[in-house]
Amino acid sequence: MNREEMIDTIRTLLRTKDKKAIDTLLHRISMADLVDALSALDVTDIARFWMLLPKTFQPEFFTYFEAPTQDALLHKLPRPTIVALFEQLPADNRADIYKRMDEPAREKLLPALAKAERDDILNLAAFEEGTVGSITTSDYATVRKDMTVAEALQELRAAAPDKETIYVIYVLDELRRLVGVLSLRELVLATEQTRVADLMHHEPIFAQVDWPREEAARLIARHDLLALPVVDSENQMVGIVTVDDAMDVSQDESTEDFHKAGGMGALKGVSVKTASVFHLYRKRVFWLLILVFGNLFSGAGIAHYEETIAAYIALVFFLPLLVDSGGNAGSQSATLMIRAMATGDVVMKDWIKMLGREFATAGILGLTMAVAVSSISFFRGGSEVAVVVALSMVMIVILGSVIGMSLPFVLARFKLDPATASAPLVTSISDAAGILIYLSIATAMLGTSPAG
Amino acid sequence: MNREEMIDTIRTLLRTKDKKAIDTLLHRISMADLVDALSALDVTDIARFWMLLPKTFQPEFFTYFEAPTQDALLHKLPRPTIVALFEQLPADNRADIYKRMDEPAREKLLPALAKAERDDILNLAAFEEGTVGSITTSDYATVRKDMTVAEALQELRAAAPDKETIYVIYVLDELRRLVGVLSLRELVLATEQTRVADLMHHEPIFAQVDWPREEAARLIARHDLLALPVVDSENQMVGIVTVDDAMDVSQDESTEDFHKAGGMGALKGVSVKTASVFHLYRKRVFWLLILVFGNLFSGAGIAHYEETIAAYIALVFFLPLLVDSGGNAGSQSATLMIRAMATGDVVMKDWIKMLGREFATAGILGLTMAVAVSSISFFRGGSEVAVVVALSMVMIVILGSVIGMSLPFVLARFKLDPATASAPLVTSISDAAGILIYLSIATAMLGTSPAG
Repeated sequence: MNREEMIDTIRTLLRTKDKKAIDTLLHRISMADLVDALSALDVTDIARFWMLLPKTFQPEFFTYFEAPTQDALLHKLPRPTIVALFEQLPADNRADIYKRMDEPAREKLLPALAKAERDDILNLAAFEEGTVGSITTSDYATVRKDMTVAEALQELRAAAPDKETIYVIYVLDELRRLVGVLSLRELVLATEQTRVADLMHHEPIFAQVDWPREEAARLIARHDLLALPVVDSENQMVGIVTVDDAMDVSQDESTEDFHKAGGMGALKGVSVKTASVFHLYRKRVFWLLILVFGNLFSGAGIAHYEETIAAYIALVFFLPLLVDSGGNAGSQSATLMIRAMATGDVVMKDWIKMLGREFATAGILGLTMAVAVSSISFFRGGSEVAVVVALSMVMIVILGSVIGMSLPFVLARFKLDPATASAPLVTSISDAAGILIYLSIATAMLGTSPAG
Repeated sequence: MNREEMIDTIRTLLRTKDKKAIDTLLHRISMADLVDALSALDVTDIARFWMLLPKTFQPEFFTYFEAPTQDALLHKLPRPTIVALFEQLPADNRADIYKRMDEPAREKLLPALAKAERDDILNLAAFEEGTVGSITTSDYATVRKDMTVAEALQELRAAAPDKETIYVIYVLDELRRLVGVLSLRELVLATEQTRVADLMHHEPIFAQVDWPREEAARLIARHDLLALPVVDSENQMVGIVTVDDAMDVSQDESTEDFHKAGGMGALKGVSVKTASVFHLYRKRVFWLLILVFGNLFSGAGIAHYEETIAAYIALVFFLPLLVDSGGNAGSQSATLMIRAMATGDVVMKDWIKMLGREFATAGILGLTMAVAVSSISFFRGGSEVAVVVALSMVMIVILGSVIGMSLPFVLARFKLDPATASAPLVTSISDAAGILIYLSIATAMLGTSPAG
């Protein structure tokens, strides 16, 4: 069934209100695809369709909508429905929605909830954006270590429908401190009389609530986990981060790094397709203006050598070429470092080692490029200009590369995001440096008036 | 236990060969951390330590080593051990290792394997790099649809130890075509007499073996799956892609896009930390040389307007500023599009819609930047130069943005990777265009000799 057919089917179902047909539909297509098709409808119809869904489907289905749609839907749904929804939504999702609500909406919702849910929402909503806590869900399955496998499975059957995952099961002590972990696979494969204590793994990998959220994503990727337990400063278990949320985080972080490395602010969760012109403007203008003023230095550099340029106007011909080559080599180096630092492949102490290799690589690159342009510069400006251009090329490419490679480290050293070392920033810095190198070499070798 | 302590412990264990102590260690630290510590030892000692591990741990442990270490270890291990290892490694890992073996090593290994394993390796190794097939594993759990829940669980207990995941269970018909899917969670929560046919979901989401591998990663992320079934052109089930492999793929793809967007070839699985200078040179030199020749156009543009420049040398002062601003705005737009296309957020048909908004955003950005430089250009070159600079700025920023935004679409249209629209490439193209705009506006408004 393609998207158009799906939309037609939905419209028909909205008329017929045929619950059996809806049930069949839900078994045939995925929630993500159905939500995608629903986006063609207005929010009133989406709300009506959602109300027709089986009660057990409604909460998870709701999580597939994007944040703005979720918020719009909540304005359409009757209050008792919202309360019921909040009691069944995955804990991390409902805390996110709660955080986006305004004060009046919160005041209408909270008193209607059971105390356990209310406390849970307030706890999870208290974690700062960007921390592990902000992507933590409190729905996880626990067993006691003195249980047998049969008892543990019985416990899971009783508690599991509410849990976000039952594939990883946590063992806590009396103070709710994490003492062990085991997988549902291990439980299912073990003989029924085995004790949990003999089956569980000690000292599980965990994250703390106040770590940056990408740390949780990195641990999940590194250790191939389905869920990562999250503890507070007293080592008490707060919740878990699931692998699907980790995947979303690592996608989001890559996107943010991409935007920063492209010389702009991160859009942070807003799609470029739906972002307003003003939002795009705001995210872009800051760096463009900074770079404008950075480029004035390049202009000042040129002005300083005005006499040399006036005497050898042919030098201007090679200006964009030389200057850009430094920026291009620098962009490459910066890109390599930004990404390697984001994936944890390269860390602070690798700088010196990387620097040595960068010199070697950039030197060979510079030589190659100097050879490539030498015939043109000889033809266009004679042997003197050709020597100036070749010498400048090697030095500019080495300098650009070293700047591009080092800037992410320098930023990280000052606790700034290495991805801020964007291609445009590196290009601007190498440009200014490149102009100085080129024109000072030219002035030194040619003087400020034609030799003959 | 930190890394240094771990290395000490490993050295002690290599001497004492205390299997009980090794067992305790394995319960206390993760495989990824232990493998990380082992990398401090030489390969002979790693092989000796690996041989000391409990047989059940050995295969999975082996998969945590990086490819070069795996290959080196295979040269140290006795043949019967290699054969036993190959029979127990996850199917996707052993196919990968087999692909890296040379012919003599393959000829020594294959005849020693059981027919089932041999066929499986040859099947999986046949899939091209970069396809879904290349990350597919053939270890998956199946049940028949006429089974009860109790029978299905029994079947899993018997078959599961070999399976890469038992959390998603597939239902096949007599021709091995995929007819349904259900989760271990659903099995565990259902009553024992329920039939699989009543529990399973029809028309599961799947991938075909020959699709690009990032498609599998995208489906897994979009539908929050733990595993994705893979079928061949006859819809027969070939295997599954697991979520941890999908996470690795999406990391790798982001890294490749990063490298390309930074103006170089993708390093493809080689760490920047271990890549040789020559490898880095090769990946970088191609684009640098292309851009050198691209920049010669900019030089030619300048040469064409030599008279105007000679008459108004102050124009050169603003050249880097104006030209770079177009490149910077273009890099931003290209970055936004490359990433949005990689995540599937923006597709081909969105071009026109995006283009309209890009004009609006770039126009406002250009105006802002024109205002920002106007006082400096007035002070430096008088009112005439100020008007030329302001007008050029608006036009150059708009043009740069439109080029940066459109280039990824153009590349995609010709079945090339949109990420090839790197910041340096966009910068070079906008540079050449910017020089022409600036100097032709200047010539038109100022003429080629000072007005007086």
